[in-house]
Amino acid sequence: MKSAMKSYVVGVGMTKFEKPESRDWQYWDMAKEAGSAALADAGVDYDAVEQVPVGYCFQASTAGQRAVYELGLTGVPVYNVNNNCATGASALMLARQFVEGGVSDCVLALGFEKMKRGALGGGSDGGDFATSPVARHYGIMAARHGFEMTPPTAQIFGNAAREHMERYGTTAAQLAAVGAKNHRHSVNNPNAQFQDPYAVEEVLAAKTIHRPLTKLQCSPTSDGAAAAVVVSERFVERHGLGDRAVEIAGQAMTTDTDESFASGSCIDAVGAPMSRSAGRQAFERAGLGIEDVDVIELHDCFSINELLTYEALGMCGAGESGKLVESGATTYGGRWVVNPSGGLISKGHPLGATGLAQAAELVWQLRGAAGARQVPGARVGLAHNIGLGGAAVVTVLRR
Amino acid sequence: MKSAMKSYVVGVGMTKFEKPESRDWQYWDMAKEAGSAALADAGVDYDAVEQVPVGYCFQASTAGQRAVYELGLTGVPVYNVNNNCATGASALMLARQFVEGGVSDCVLALGFEKMKRGALGGGSDGGDFATSPVARHYGIMAARHGFEMTPPTAQIFGNAAREHMERYGTTAAQLAAVGAKNHRHSVNNPNAQFQDPYAVEEVLAAKTIHRPLTKLQCSPTSDGAAAAVVVSERFVERHGLGDRAVEIAGQAMTTDTDESFASGSCIDAVGAPMSRSAGRQAFERAGLGIEDVDVIELHDCFSINELLTYEALGMCGAGESGKLVESGATTYGGRWVVNPSGGLISKGHPLGATGLAQAAELVWQLRGAAGARQVPGARVGLAHNIGLGGAAVVTVLRR
Repeated sequence: MKSAMKSYVVGVGMTKFEKPESRDWQYWDMAKEAGSAALADAGVDYDAVEQVPVGYCFQASTAGQRAVYELGLTGVPVYNVNNNCATGASALMLARQFVEGGVSDCVLALGFEKMKRGALGGGSDGGDFATSPVARHYGIMAARHGFEMTPPTAQIFGNAAREHMERYGTTAAQLAAVGAKNHRHSVNNPNAQFQDPYAVEEVLAAKTIHRPLTKLQCSPTSDGAAAAVVVSERFVERHGLGDRAVEIAGQAMTTDTDESFASGSCIDAVGAPMSRSAGRQAFERAGLGIEDVDVIELHDCFSINELLTYEALGMCGAGESGKLVESGATTYGGRWVVNPSGGLISKGHPLGATGLAQAAELVWQLRGAAGARQVPGARVGLAHNIGLGGAAVVTVLRR
Repeated sequence: MKSAMKSYVVGVGMTKFEKPESRDWQYWDMAKEAGSAALADAGVDYDAVEQVPVGYCFQASTAGQRAVYELGLTGVPVYNVNNNCATGASALMLARQFVEGGVSDCVLALGFEKMKRGALGGGSDGGDFATSPVARHYGIMAARHGFEMTPPTAQIFGNAAREHMERYGTTAAQLAAVGAKNHRHSVNNPNAQFQDPYAVEEVLAAKTIHRPLTKLQCSPTSDGAAAAVVVSERFVERHGLGDRAVEIAGQAMTTDTDESFASGSCIDAVGAPMSRSAGRQAFERAGLGIEDVDVIELHDCFSINELLTYEALGMCGAGESGKLVESGATTYGGRWVVNPSGGLISKGHPLGATGLAQAAELVWQLRGAAGARQVPGARVGLAHNIGLGGAAVVTVLRR
């Protein structure tokens, strides 16, 4: 990466995330709601938008166009991007590069998902399992732990949790503490699918999805959309948007390397090496470190992944993440606030929208506009979005 | 678009396009074959590749990663892009922008499709028809002509053909002349799915798919992959690739505008306005016009679309395309050679690969390396790739 130009998020928007089939809307309705909100937040007309990368996994080809047409039929380029659970951040990554390269001055990144109940865990549709991109991950998991009749993503992350417990002495209560924290945070988020607090004991006592993960430690199946308007420095200046602009200080996407598969470790197979590498690269580009970060939205698809990501981002040493969450270091009053929005576990996880909703939360936080969930004095935020298959995107935002 | 840096295609590769299920290969096998060929053609190691946009419609999420991993597990960003039949050129469009913006120096654009027999016509899987992005196009078609029990894309393009015949007096023989020309061209293309010549009378006498379109005027369902290595000027110089570099002189993607739907015309609904606009923008960026072009690979998914594209690109006036093909102006010895590869009709149409295979053919032509299908003295080439839903990409290549 050799780009020198800066890029800024000047507008964000999202729908409330909802249980599938609980609201009568099409994917283009939710996309229009989120996209219009982002444009209004930026104070930018749709006609200023030059390109639109769109993220989704479950709709048909060119669904992005159908969504964009609801905003305005202007004939601009639309790219439908699909990177499993990292799809939203992948759209943001394209938007950033169009702007940083000087190819475009104003790009709308849009993500949405209209899911089927129970779809999460099966990955996206299309193609059979044996030839699916994540089959290799499952192979490693099955070799270590065998298969059970539970959702496949819960199995592989659950087995990564068992491995972490065996290797480091991490406890079920520490894993449950992630769920309790994120559900507690979501109480203040009107956009969250759930807004109910639970004690660690309640999280532990909830229905087991795949041991040791209980239902309150797993992200639900969700519908929803989110969007971000990414612009150049000259666009910020020309339109006087300095008061709402948040800089994308550094961003990186990584995919699997030999490290993901060679060890036969489920921790490696679920993407911890990708997160580590993406974090390192994003910090390097930003000229910042984890010590500079105030607020984090990370990919807690399952509680174990929040713990793995603490370690991958250098928030603690290997095996120390269970103690870190128990210490209170990752909630209000602690060193970082992680997932103030409620995270995927409580806010919800509509695949194509998730990465952009993380960006929306951080923009609100860095503007001091997060209301009851505001992290006091937040200046630097980090978003972490990961998908099996795989891709990890880390984005460092600075106000 | 404000970019000033130049981008070059320095390597291309493709598999033979094949009837689905006729060869025992997975999508990653074909992707590896095409990707490796493109890298070898460029004389570039996989390790030099910084980003990989991947185009496909029918495989599961992150299939691009699975394909890229076969080339080398280096952890580089992968973007899975899906723009229906314009998917391959959409991947090329991302690669070009990464390079022209100076964000990357070496990008591999990769496209593949492993289709199911008879899949073409239904668009990509995922989502039901009523909410599919192309439903609006079908609505216009149905309002004019009703539905028949034939493949839906054949219906909409067939009805555009009927409209062209009614409006301009275009004849069935003129439409068949497109099929005859492209099948004749493919005789010299070992990568083509078919390599059999047919007289206009044989094309007319072939099985009717949707009146007036016969089977020899329709692209088949195909498996296959194609790839292109796109690099910066400094990369060309540093690696001494000047002898194989073909410049991307201009490129544009358009999506639908009001014009696509407002008239109620099937010709507009199948994308003629998108092609016109993309062509105009690409020529403007290249500083060239249709009079400068020697060789064209255009999206002849059905014979009518080749005629519509002649008009959209300014090769003739409105309604004159039937006469143009009959005159021999678009074959060897004529003003332009259109679809020397055999086009989609005879070379085949694996959705994600098609746009990149067009680029491959043009690179070979502009290097003077197209063997028995060489267009003498070709210096400027044009690729046109379009998908319902929709997107049209026009790329002007210059040697």
